[in-house]
Amino acid sequence: MNPTIELLQRHRSIRKYKSIPLDSEQIIAILHSAQMASSSSNVQAYSVIAVTDPAMKKELAVLTGNQAYVEQCPLFLVWCADMYRLREACEMQGTEMVHGTMENFIVATVDTALAAQNAAIAAESMGLGIVYIGGIRNNPREVTKLLQLPELVYPVFGMCVGYPDHTPEIKPRLGSKAVFHHNTYDTAGVRGEIENYDQVMRAYYLERTKGKRDTVWSKEMADKYRQPIREHMRAFLEEQGFRFD
Amino acid sequence: MNPTIELLQRHRSIRKYKSIPLDSEQIIAILHSAQMASSSSNVQAYSVIAVTDPAMKKELAVLTGNQAYVEQCPLFLVWCADMYRLREACEMQGTEMVHGTMENFIVATVDTALAAQNAAIAAESMGLGIVYIGGIRNNPREVTKLLQLPELVYPVFGMCVGYPDHTPEIKPRLGSKAVFHHNTYDTAGVRGEIENYDQVMRAYYLERTKGKRDTVWSKEMADKYRQPIREHMRAFLEEQGFRFD
Repeated sequence: MNPTIELLQRHRSIRKYKSIPLDSEQIIAILHSAQMASSSSNVQAYSVIAVTDPAMKKELAVLTGNQAYVEQCPLFLVWCADMYRLREACEMQGTEMVHGTMENFIVATVDTALAAQNAAIAAESMGLGIVYIGGIRNNPREVTKLLQLPELVYPVFGMCVGYPDHTPEIKPRLGSKAVFHHNTYDTAGVRGEIENYDQVMRAYYLERTKGKRDTVWSKEMADKYRQPIREHMRAFLEEQGFRFD
Repeated sequence: MNPTIELLQRHRSIRKYKSIPLDSEQIIAILHSAQMASSSSNVQAYSVIAVTDPAMKKELAVLTGNQAYVEQCPLFLVWCADMYRLREACEMQGTEMVHGTMENFIVATVDTALAAQNAAIAAESMGLGIVYIGGIRNNPREVTKLLQLPELVYPVFGMCVGYPDHTPEIKPRLGSKAVFHHNTYDTAGVRGEIENYDQVMRAYYLERTKGKRDTVWSKEMADKYRQPIREHMRAFLEEQGFRFD
């Protein structure tokens, strides 16, 4: 096992940050690493808004569901799927961009995630911590207005970056047989793997909360998925000019 | 700059592989690293099909657009967004999963991409090469049948993994000012950045093709986006049970 693999495997999300700013070399290393991730046909269909303004971070902390670390972290990155720049490129060539398919949406969303994960690894390799903020989709219209995102851009997730001020336990994952299949997908093994993981997570929650939280993964998932989540996303994306034909 | 950041920044896609199989320790390291990537609320909404069967790789090479390296590489990973397992978890708890929103689709697609990028980095850290295969979406129905993917699972992209048998140039990226914005999105600078990048890419293409390919990035993008791409994706995803309300 080499140091990079060790780094990848000791990831934990950091939700408490020291009040130490990042220096510009660190930020450049993070962003350049992000840019070198793979991109579908080199379309590079993403942009990043680096938010350091304290008032904006404070507002974003509220908009993402009152997550204090969004305000505390020295650098808050908003990772956006971006087809605006591609439309500009097309227009510079006198071409009208056709961008109305689900395929276009998938490519932009995946490009964004690949770049962001490279940024996360780069940050962690320098002793920094990160946490992804899906809550950026709680109030995407307000985020879009605050960050002045143009049409054909949407915030996929946020990311706090900074010096960790705690060391949480590494969260156990599903057994590898639940996630990995050889040549064909094996549905027969799935429920047994969930049962195994339920017991692992029960022990994890009990220990982490000193016996207060007695639950299992499948119950957490059932509680989460018994109602629709962020139902505003489709309409918001259409307002931003995305189509899904 | 530490070794991990150097690794991230020297990524190139590998499209020629030596005929050396991977050992099981390598595969375990890649897959475990993938699992340790962040996941939205720990839903882990992805699965990976590791294809090593030669006949299947041959068929996938055709289905992805006659990409020979899909057949040549010792390990072909098909990264799938997966809500099937979550539905199983809900059913084990007697809950009917509500999964019909764009939000659910984004979460599953992003979870898949984050895990895959960790796998890519782990592989590269061991001296292996990778290339993402968006062509897996050329014929998603046939891929789904071949890999026996159940409902609520879709192949987002493939990934070749193996020992590199060439060392392509690192592809230049857009200038950082095109991609990164400070506090708010700056639309004013975008076209100038595209013009700069066009010149960088022109030189890159000319040198790589010994003068044969004289083009710029914006023209490549205009040629790509003047027609809809993979228009079958929406209908395919709906056949797999995904909804986008």
